[in-house]
Formats: sequence, C-alpha cells, structure tokens
Amino acid sequence: YIVTKMGEDWIFLVLLGLTMALVSWSMDYASAKSLASYPMILVMFASLFCHLVSPQAIGSGIPELKTILRGVVLKEYLTLKAFVAKVVGLTAGLGSGMPVGKEGPFVHIASICAAVLSRFMSIFSGVYENGTHNQDLLVCACAVGVATCFAAPVGGKSLLNSLRHRSPNPYGYTDILTVGCAVGVGCCFGTPLGGVLFSIEVTSTYFAVRNYWRGYFAATFSAFIFRVLSVWNKDAVTITALFKTNFRMDFPFDLQELPAFAIIGISCGFLGAFFVYLNRQVVLFMRRPTALTRFLTKHRLIYPGAVTLIIATFTFPPGFGQFMAGELMPRECINSLFDNFTWTKISGSPAPPGLGRSSAWLHPHVSVFVVLLLFCVMKFWMSAVSTTMPIPSGAFMPVFILGAAFGRLVGEIMATLFPNGILFDGIVYRILPGGYAVIGAAAMTGAVTHTVSTAVICFELTGQISHILPMMVAVILANMVAQGLQPSLYDSIIQVKK
Amino acid sequence: YIVTKMGEDWIFLVLLGLTMALVSWSMDYASAKSLASYPMILVMFASLFCHLVSPQAIGSGIPELKTILRGVVLKEYLTLKAFVAKVVGLTAGLGSGMPVGKEGPFVHIASICAAVLSRFMSIFSGVYENGTHNQDLLVCACAVGVATCFAAPVGGKSLLNSLRHRSPNPYGYTDILTVGCAVGVGCCFGTPLGGVLFSIEVTSTYFAVRNYWRGYFAATFSAFIFRVLSVWNKDAVTITALFKTNFRMDFPFDLQELPAFAIIGISCGFLGAFFVYLNRQVVLFMRRPTALTRFLTKHRLIYPGAVTLIIATFTFPPGFGQFMAGELMPRECINSLFDNFTWTKISGSPAPPGLGRSSAWLHPHVSVFVVLLLFCVMKFWMSAVSTTMPIPSGAFMPVFILGAAFGRLVGEIMATLFPNGILFDGIVYRILPGGYAVIGAAAMTGAVTHTVSTAVICFELTGQISHILPMMVAVILANMVAQGLQPSLYDSIIQVKK
Repeated sequence: YIVTKMGEDWIFLVLLGLTMALVSWSMDYASAKSLASYPMILVMFASLFCHLVSPQAIGSGIPELKTILRGVVLKEYLTLKAFVAKVVGLTAGLGSGMPVGKEGPFVHIASICAAVLSRFMSIFSGVYENGTHNQDLLVCACAVGVATCFAAPVGGKSLLNSLRHRSPNPYGYTDILTVGCAVGVGCCFGTPLGGVLFSIEVTSTYFAVRNYWRGYFAATFSAFIFRVLSVWNKDAVTITALFKTNFRMDFPFDLQELPAFAIIGISCGFLGAFFVYLNRQVVLFMRRPTALTRFLTKHRLIYPGAVTLIIATFTFPPGFGQFMAGELMPRECINSLFDNFTWTKISGSPAPPGLGRSSAWLHPHVSVFVVLLLFCVMKFWMSAVSTTMPIPSGAFMPVFILGAAFGRLVGEIMATLFPNGILFDGIVYRILPGGYAVIGAAAMTGAVTHTVSTAVICFELTGQISHILPMMVAVILANMVAQGLQPSLYDSIIQVKK
Repeated sequence: YIVTKMGEDWIFLVLLGLTMALVSWSMDYASAKSLASYPMILVMFASLFCHLVSPQAIGSGIPELKTILRGVVLKEYLTLKAFVAKVVGLTAGLGSGMPVGKEGPFVHIASICAAVLSRFMSIFSGVYENGTHNQDLLVCACAVGVATCFAAPVGGKSLLNSLRHRSPNPYGYTDILTVGCAVGVGCCFGTPLGGVLFSIEVTSTYFAVRNYWRGYFAATFSAFIFRVLSVWNKDAVTITALFKTNFRMDFPFDLQELPAFAIIGISCGFLGAFFVYLNRQVVLFMRRPTALTRFLTKHRLIYPGAVTLIIATFTFPPGFGQFMAGELMPRECINSLFDNFTWTKISGSPAPPGLGRSSAWLHPHVSVFVVLLLFCVMKFWMSAVSTTMPIPSGAFMPVFILGAAFGRLVGEIMATLFPNGILFDGIVYRILPGGYAVIGAAAMTGAVTHTVSTAVICFELTGQISHILPMMVAVILANMVAQGLQPSLYDSIIQVKK
C-alpha cells in the first residue's frame, strides 16, 4: 500500500532530493571559497539582499513552517523569491564565519523546493492524468487525513476545520512540506535518518507513518547525492561521516563515567533553557520602541553590521581570539573538539603528530580549561545575538558547537581528575574527552530544540554509535530540564512573532 | 508540555522498562543455560504449556497487537496468564535452538506488562489523585486524540467511532500499548532507538509524537538496564553493541561496490516476499481440513515435535549440519557472519588467530559458497515452517540470520571477483564481506516486515554506522520490491487468521 502511494510521487521525491543536494553542495562550495575575509561586508550584503528581495527569508524558517503545518496560511513564505533570497543570503552569512547555522534555513529552502516542485508536477499530472478522477478523491482523503493528523491536538474541531483545508494540489500540501523538512535537515549534514526524525519532532504533533517512509526515501537520496558530489570533487575519499570520530570501539566508556554524562545532560538542559531565554530577550529588546531601536529600524544595515563588527573583533585570531580558538571555522571547530587527544595532557609538551587544527586550542600561556570556558561563554552570547540578525540564520549549528565545547570542558576536567583513567576489571582505560564533546553537543541541541532525535543526528555526523546509551540518557535528561523551564527555541520565536 | 505529560507517568515508564529488562535478561540467561540439548522435549513442553495455560500466547504477537491498536477488541490477549505462558514458552523455544526469534513475542510480553502495570497504577492514582478531575478530562482528550491518530485512514468516521472508544484507564490504552511495543523491541536487542521506530512502523498508521518521546524514554531505560545486567554478570566488559562489528572506519566501502549493494537489496526484496508467501502457504495447508490436519489438530504435540525432529536432524552438526554450520547457535551465527575475515581467502590454509567460531563455516572439503548457499536454502524453509509451530515464536531473528547469510554470500562472491580489492585513488581497498552481511540482514528483515527501521536496529546491533548509506539504499530497494509483491508478514498472518 505504501508502494502504490510511493509510486505516484517517487519522481517528485527524487527530484526534490536531487535539487536540494545540489543546492546544499554548491552553497558549501561557495561559502568555503569566500574565505571569511570580509565578514561585515558579507553580512550586510546578506541583510540587504534579503530585505530587498524577500524579507520572509530572514531567520531560521522552522518556526514559520511549524505555523504553516498547523494550518495557518503565511503568505509569501513558499515562493521562488524567498528561495533565491534565502540561498544567497545564507551563502553569504555562512561565508562570513559568524556563528549562524544552515540547518533551519535549509528546512525552509527544502520546503520551498517541495512546494514549487509540486506545483510544477501538477501541471504535468494535470495533462496526463486528467481522466482519472480516482486520484483526486484519494488525495482529498489523504489531505484530510494529514490535516487531521497534524491539527489533532484541538480534538473534535480539527476534523471540521480540516475539511475546509482541502489541498489545491494533487499532492497533500502538508505531506510535501514535511518531506521537504526532512530533506532539508538530511542533506544539510548528510544525515538522512536523523533528518527525518528531527523534522517530525520539530514540526508536528501527530504524524502519518506514510510520510516517514517518504521522508526517508527522499532524504536518503538527497544525502547520498550530497556526499557523492564531495567524493567526485575529491574532498573526501569515499562516503563517510561528516565529522568522523575515531574513538576506540572495544571500550568506549565505563559505567563509572555515567554520572559525568548525566551531569552534562542536566547542565545542558539549564544552559539550553538559558539560551532560549537570552535569545528571546534580545529579540524583545529590539522590538521595544526606544529611540535606539527606532533608529536601527530606519537604518536596517547598522544592526547586523554592528553585531558582526563586535563579534569579529572578539574572535579576531591575533587579538582576543587567541584565547578562544578564534581562528577556527565552525567545521574545524567541531572536528577538533571531537578529536582523540586529551588536551590537558599534551599542553606544554611538543604537539604530537596528527594534532592538526586542534592546536588552536592550546595556548602557550593559558590553560586549556580557561580557553574552553572562555569559548563557551563568548560563543554563548554571540550565538544568541547573531541568530537575531536579519539574515537567514539557523541556531542548530552554533548550539551544537557550544554543546561540544561544554562537553569537552567536562571531559577534560574528568581526564584531570582521573589522570590514569578508570580501573575496571584489572585494565586501566583512559578517558576520552572527545566522547564527552559528542554527548554535550547532542544534549545541548536537544535541550534548545526540545527534541531527542539530535542523538541520531550526532551518530550520523560522527559515524560512530559506540556512545549511544550515555548519549540517549544525557539527551533525555537535558530535555526534561529544558522543557520544564522554557519553550523550545522555535516555539519561543513563534510566541515572540505573534 | 511533553514534560507535564511525562511527569504523570514517568514512574510507569520506568517500571515498565525495568520489568522488561529483567524479564529479557533472565530469559536469555535461562535459555543459554539449557544448552540446546533436548530440542524436541523443549519445543513440545513449550507447545503443551502454551496450550494449557493460554493459547493466546502462541505465535508472534505483533499481528494481534496491530489488530488491537486498530480498535478491535481481542479477548484474553493482555492478561497475566498469557504473560506467563509466553515467557515460559519462549524461554523453552529459544533454548531449543530452533530458528525462532524473540522479538515478536517480546513485543507482546511488553504490551501485556504495560497493560497490567497501568491497571496496577490506576489503583494508586485512584487513591491519590481522585480529587483532581483535570487529569480525567485530559486523558479523555488524549485517548480520543490517539484513537483518531491510529484509526485515521478511515477518514471522517474515525472520530465519531473514537469518541466511543474512551479509555477506562487513566492512561490512554493505545499509548500504553505503543510504548510497550517499543520497550519490547528495545530491550530484546538493547536497541532503544530502532525499537521505537520499528514498533511505530509495524503497528501504526498515524502516531502521536508524544508517544515517540515516551517510547524513547522507556526503551532507553530498559535497554540500559538490560545491558547493565550483563556487565554485572561479567558477560561483557562494558556497555557495547550486542553483535559488535569491527570494520575499518576510514574506508568502509567504495562507490563502485554500490551496484552489489543494490543487488542485495533487490534480491532480498524478492526473497522476503517469497518467505511471506511460503509461511502463509504452510499455515493455509495446516488449516485445510484433510485427514492429516485433523489428526494433527487432535494430537497437538505431534506437529511441533515432528517439525523439531526434522529440523534438528538436518542441522545435527556431525551429520548434514557440518555442511551448513549447524553447530552454531543463532547468536554465534550472526557474530561469525559479521566478522572481519574473508572466508574464501582463508579456507584451505591454517586458521588465522581470532577466527573463533567462524571456523564452523569452513568445511575442509566443501567450498564456502556451497556451505553458505546450503545454509540459506535450508534455513529459509526451516524458518518459514518453524514460525508456524504452536509456540511463542518470532520471525525477525531467523530472517535476520537468513539475510546476513545471503549478504555474506554476495560479499564472498564479490571478494572472489575482485581478489585484490578495488582500486581507488591509487590505494587498493579490500572488500569486506562482513559489511555485505550486515546490509543483507537489514534488507531482508526490512522486506519481510515492510519497515525501513531495520536499518536503525542494525546500526545499534553492530555498533557501527559506517555503512549507513548503502544500507539505507538496500533497505529501500528491498521494501519497494517486497511491498509490490506481498503484504508484510504480520499483515499476512492477520489475513490468514481472519
């Protein structure tokens, strides 16, 4: 039964996957080429471009999609114009090296793609399948089913409402958007599975298993193409994980380390809630009608410019940046945080071979702890502020880095407390601070977005599943704490925008 | 909002997880101790016990749960009696070494656990929270929501029907059952994530994201306890994967191997559909009113006894079993199929160190291919037949082994075709037949159950995620083929039982 459903729109799903993989890859390519030389110019260009072409392209896009999927009609959010603005703005924003992510915008871009493609496909199917009335009926039923499935929290009223929300396209609209979300996340990191689960958790309350299948198919195809492109371009040898880790497999962690993982989870819960709070306060401050904000609203380019200037000054590598590994681009940052070394042990001594970019964390005069702590504190407010800039920007990646740094900090502390490792069964196992970093990253993103699928995304990103149980424990704890304190980042933005 | 929901029943979820972990572990322990010495006696005991205590305990349990979750009331399926019969029967069945799995029965056992526990909890909450009427209302809404969410394919009528299906317990009944399913799969293999996804795909058409969260929580807890128990028992050094593989991480596979993976996927689709067909034919044959079947119905113990005798004779290690690695228990079988050696290369020469139980596959006079092929063919009909025996028996594990053997066969053929490995970028990489086995296992189980989550279960079982993309491709292809040819095994059983 799923195949008959699939059969109808597999072309659609393949096209969607293909388009998004191409977009994702070429954006990565372009933003890597821009070399982060002129952050201010790039950010201001992004802001100006978005403002002129389509103001709807500003921000993450996930809150808006969540609203659309709940049945509210938001105009101009799924047009080709928004697509262009988002792609160009995001490329410039990423290239600037600011702490902005590509995940949220990608969800938006993929959804636009899906909406546009389905309109395009409906022309063809209109020509070829006009005679069959069956499909129409089926789709009506399907659209109603899906609408019910998403709007169900309201209970009884939903069905009546949903009957009025008939889809104008031969494909269920919400179906398409959900699949679009999955593709967006999936091809952004090359994590098809985590993408599907994350988009389900983030956007919907009830969910059709049919869409799980569709999302899985399209996201796999997309992630596959995305990775094949980088193989062809000789960036990678073969298809492997994006931030591959290489922890020992035989004994990844000991049961006695579990309390530390639990502490990471709980702290990340508090930090995540605080991040959401801080982000909202910044937005609310900018909304308050003071002389300053009136001035900034008039001269739209000044706010992003000023924020970029401040952040760039702080991270300037020869200046203050040397105390917080400012020279690293976000990707290098994650790779180095996930590495296999124990920094507290190698600082002071000559760098071992294969250290690579991780050497940025080792300041000749300042302790590793101070560098990591400074990094966490500085990046915390930087991420919270820079995601409020009027450019396409996601919060997932910055929060991911924050979490990784925090986890690494705990890991290094553990490695100092137990310098000889943990004794178990006669054999001494050393502590892997990189594993703590992975767990911290998953827990922090989970706390900010209120999802547990971030654990899956982490496995797919690192290519190692050895830390699965502590990671799931940490993510669940982080979620419990964060959900008790604050709404998710996306819900918070929805509330503020109302 | 999820936390407030969670807060109410986290005790319930923890208790459920704990109980199931204990059950799972002690069953493994007991069936490992029985040493597979008297298969016939064990199987006949299981059959007799089930027949006397609770005939509802026979079979997998997933088809019945699927029916219950769709709103049909099946009596006696969720009682303590069925629980006892299922646990005892399954332990005996597993100990006999027959190709029967524990996954399906575990889903049933966990669901009974959940149902009984919720009845138990409702006594307490009746005492403590009688004053608050809020919860009652909330639960009504919740129950309606869930009922809608599962029964939605029928469209408009569902809501009206669901209003009549109010849950008598303070917890939504279907909620509980879905969570129970997740826990069942999760603690059976120690794969929390795959368990949640698999149970969602298998049992429901629509599902509430709320239950995803609950399932995730309970399944993680359960899997965690399950694995901690084996650490305490000194079976394992620390918490690692159940069938841990140790493939090279840096270059798990080459893009040029993809066609072979696709072939595995497509073939597994055909084989899976044929398996479902064969299984149904056996059941239908036993149902047909001939003199033979009348005789067998009267003397219930003869059918399982005869089947066991035949299968045990074929697999008898010193006899015919030597040509199909008959000495291996299912777990050893999987471990050896997933190993890192290339059997075609080591057969004939003295066994390398660390080969272990894999040596069972290397017959001094018969080629590895013949052994693998014989294994596939023999286990194919054995699994299809033995799952029709009137004992608690799942089909997941036997199919998993079948798929692994088939994948291994393709892998060994590939290793013979390219004896020097595949040249890429100046470096020659050897082919890993073990990786093919993992992919085959995921594709075959996916084809038989019509799910894609088997890929996730595979990652969690092996502890390695390096083959994610080819595996997802193979699983999707297998699903496409199998869904086009036959219903899933569970749907097939539902159809037959009607």
